[in-house]
Amino acid sequence: MSDGMSSMPLGQQPLAIICGAGSLPFAVADAARRRGRGVVLFALRGWADPARAESYPHHWVRFGQLGRFCRIARQEGCRDVVFIGSVVRPSFWQIWPDLAAMRAMPRIIAMFRGGDDHLMSGIMKVFEDRGFHPIGAHEVAPEILMPEGAVGHYQPSESHHADIALGLALVRAIGRFDVGQATVVAGNHVLAVEAAEGTDEMLSRVAELRRKGRIRSSGGVLVKAPKPGQDRRIDLPTIGPQTIAGAARAGLAGIAVVSGEAIIAEPDSVAQAADRERIFIVGVRQVASHDD
Amino acid sequence: MSDGMSSMPLGQQPLAIICGAGSLPFAVADAARRRGRGVVLFALRGWADPARAESYPHHWVRFGQLGRFCRIARQEGCRDVVFIGSVVRPSFWQIWPDLAAMRAMPRIIAMFRGGDDHLMSGIMKVFEDRGFHPIGAHEVAPEILMPEGAVGHYQPSESHHADIALGLALVRAIGRFDVGQATVVAGNHVLAVEAAEGTDEMLSRVAELRRKGRIRSSGGVLVKAPKPGQDRRIDLPTIGPQTIAGAARAGLAGIAVVSGEAIIAEPDSVAQAADRERIFIVGVRQVASHDD
Repeated sequence: MSDGMSSMPLGQQPLAIICGAGSLPFAVADAARRRGRGVVLFALRGWADPARAESYPHHWVRFGQLGRFCRIARQEGCRDVVFIGSVVRPSFWQIWPDLAAMRAMPRIIAMFRGGDDHLMSGIMKVFEDRGFHPIGAHEVAPEILMPEGAVGHYQPSESHHADIALGLALVRAIGRFDVGQATVVAGNHVLAVEAAEGTDEMLSRVAELRRKGRIRSSGGVLVKAPKPGQDRRIDLPTIGPQTIAGAARAGLAGIAVVSGEAIIAEPDSVAQAADRERIFIVGVRQVASHDD
Repeated sequence: MSDGMSSMPLGQQPLAIICGAGSLPFAVADAARRRGRGVVLFALRGWADPARAESYPHHWVRFGQLGRFCRIARQEGCRDVVFIGSVVRPSFWQIWPDLAAMRAMPRIIAMFRGGDDHLMSGIMKVFEDRGFHPIGAHEVAPEILMPEGAVGHYQPSESHHADIALGLALVRAIGRFDVGQATVVAGNHVLAVEAAEGTDEMLSRVAELRRKGRIRSSGGVLVKAPKPGQDRRIDLPTIGPQTIAGAARAGLAGIAVVSGEAIIAEPDSVAQAADRERIFIVGVRQVASHDD
């Protein structure tokens, strides 16, 4: 065909993957390649795994180097951009703003003052303004999404299902406050609600309260759900092997995640870890409750 | 008058005060005495302050000695009972059930399985069934309730008031889940939500997240409110000098408490500590929000 690059379907342009920590960026890159799509990794220095990044076409960038990203991504012919992998909220000294980032600063500072949702949506907008098309990792790699039903051999009991329903209702009730996406419920009693500390620290807290005898019940379920209206292109809740380890240390019976609305990192390792710790991992539907 | 004890106004019978830890039980006892009412302290071994209990007519009881309490309280002519002072959830080995408590066991075990609210309401019912009349400490000592407006010299700013409104709305939204009564909000962002860990631990968490650079904003407000439908006879939120210390360590700008719906322990010490730490303590109205 002679009409060249401008009419090439978007999906055939190489995919820019901005890589944070963990194995998820590489799972997404592999999934895109399996579908015949080229990938270019933009590995975030300090977060992305250097050894694994070597196996892909890649460029190192620092958090904040917006101009550098835009220049290289355009040279590489990328338009679609995926943000994936964990980046624990960088403190100011970890940010290396270049000129383009400086120009976006007033907006970025406004985001930093808001909650997580504002920050993430604002970052998407900054990339859109520069002609890029941020998409969700699950759009190019649906296999990273949590399926419905059990992952591994263990299954939730009826009382676990009651705890799951309570947890889902709680997360839904606090969603509009732009707060955490997780809670721990045991025996119909809410033990912990996640806010700025993150899921791993919330699980450590439950473990600690149990060690001190401050929690009477045993077992319990970690319930994770997306915030209503959250930007699914960047901020889906994620569970991985360290979530299983944290849940086991907290003495939980299992983990429930809204299916199709959360990412499961390294599903095979997760299933093996869950079986070893004798806890269930289940994908559930977030149903609208009658009191919403 | 000749009709004797049976027609004596209830208020004139000596007040039974079941005393947990801290200075509040003695503040309540003093307030009752100032109104000319006799008091009998039932000091909980392991929680009540022995040195201070000595200054009042008192009996030592162990947590769980329901029969012993009933017998002595009847001998003393008490009918009204106040539960006051902190009793961190006792673990089973701290409970010394006597025969009467054993008989109440099936109900008590059911309560232990439910959340806090069920436990507290259930305990009230056990005392009512035995002819006692549980009342709130604030009914005999209204001076322990948080007043409206500032305690101490510092006042919340307009943006603090916005954080307070957000915190009140959040606590209201989670009230029906029988979960914590407190949250920390800074710059329109929810940093922490209290569940089983209690206010002091939630404040330590915020301090820790700040130390690690995980929270970008400075300042912030601790917002405490009663749970909707909570049993005000036993479970009003309380702030005291250690709340101020915790808020200061967490770098907060102040504390907001629903006026008339929370207890302020040692108000003079609280005001002095707040001024010293340059934080505000304010009693606010819990107004119904338009989206309730």
